[in-house]
Amino acid sequence: MIRHIVLFRFRDELDAAQVAEAIASFRALQEKIPEVRAFEDGTNVSPEGLAHGFTHAFLLDFEDAAARDAYLHHPAHKAFVAYIQPRLDKALVFDWVAG
Amino acid sequence: MIRHIVLFRFRDELDAAQVAEAIASFRALQEKIPEVRAFEDGTNVSPEGLAHGFTHAFLLDFEDAAARDAYLHHPAHKAFVAYIQPRLDKALVFDWVAG
Repeated sequence: MIRHIVLFRFRDELDAAQVAEAIASFRALQEKIPEVRAFEDGTNVSPEGLAHGFTHAFLLDFEDAAARDAYLHHPAHKAFVAYIQPRLDKALVFDWVAG
Repeated sequence: MIRHIVLFRFRDELDAAQVAEAIASFRALQEKIPEVRAFEDGTNVSPEGLAHGFTHAFLLDFEDAAARDAYLHHPAHKAFVAYIQPRLDKALVFDWVAG
C-alpha cells in the first residue's frame, strides 16, 4: 500500500468559505477516482510548533504505485491541481510504502 | 484518534548505518511508550518532487490528545529528541484528528 500525505497552507486572502470549498473539492476526488482507497484530512493540532506553516493535512491510501500514478494522471486530479494551485501559499507531498 | 506525522531530513554527513540506527531508535519508542497505538515509516516514493527535501516519514497513531501529550512528555521520547536533533537537517511535525 502507498500512503500519500499532502500538506497545504492556503493563501491568507482566502476566507473560510473558500477554504471549505477547496477542502470539499479535494474530498470529492474519492468519488471521482476509484484508485483512492482511503481519504482523511484535518487541521494541525500539534503543540510542538514544527508544522512549518502548513495548516491542513490530507492522507490518501492507494493499493500500489500504479494506482497512485493512475490517480495523479486522472483528469479529475489534474483539474483539481489547476483549481487548487492559485489558492495555495505552499504544498508538500510525500508518499511512502506502508505495511 | 490523533494522527502524528513526522518528516525528517538527516544531515548529509550521516552514513547509511547512522540513518538506520536513528530509524531503529524511533521505532523502538513503540515498545517503550504504551500510548503509541500504531507506528509506520518509509522513505519518499512520490514522483511529484514536492517533498521539500524531506526523506523519511513516520506516522504514529494515538487514542487522543492526552495520549499524544503523554508520549511527548515521556522520558523515552525526550531522550529520543535529544539524540535525534543533532542528526537532523530539518524536521516537520503535524498532528490531526482522524476518523
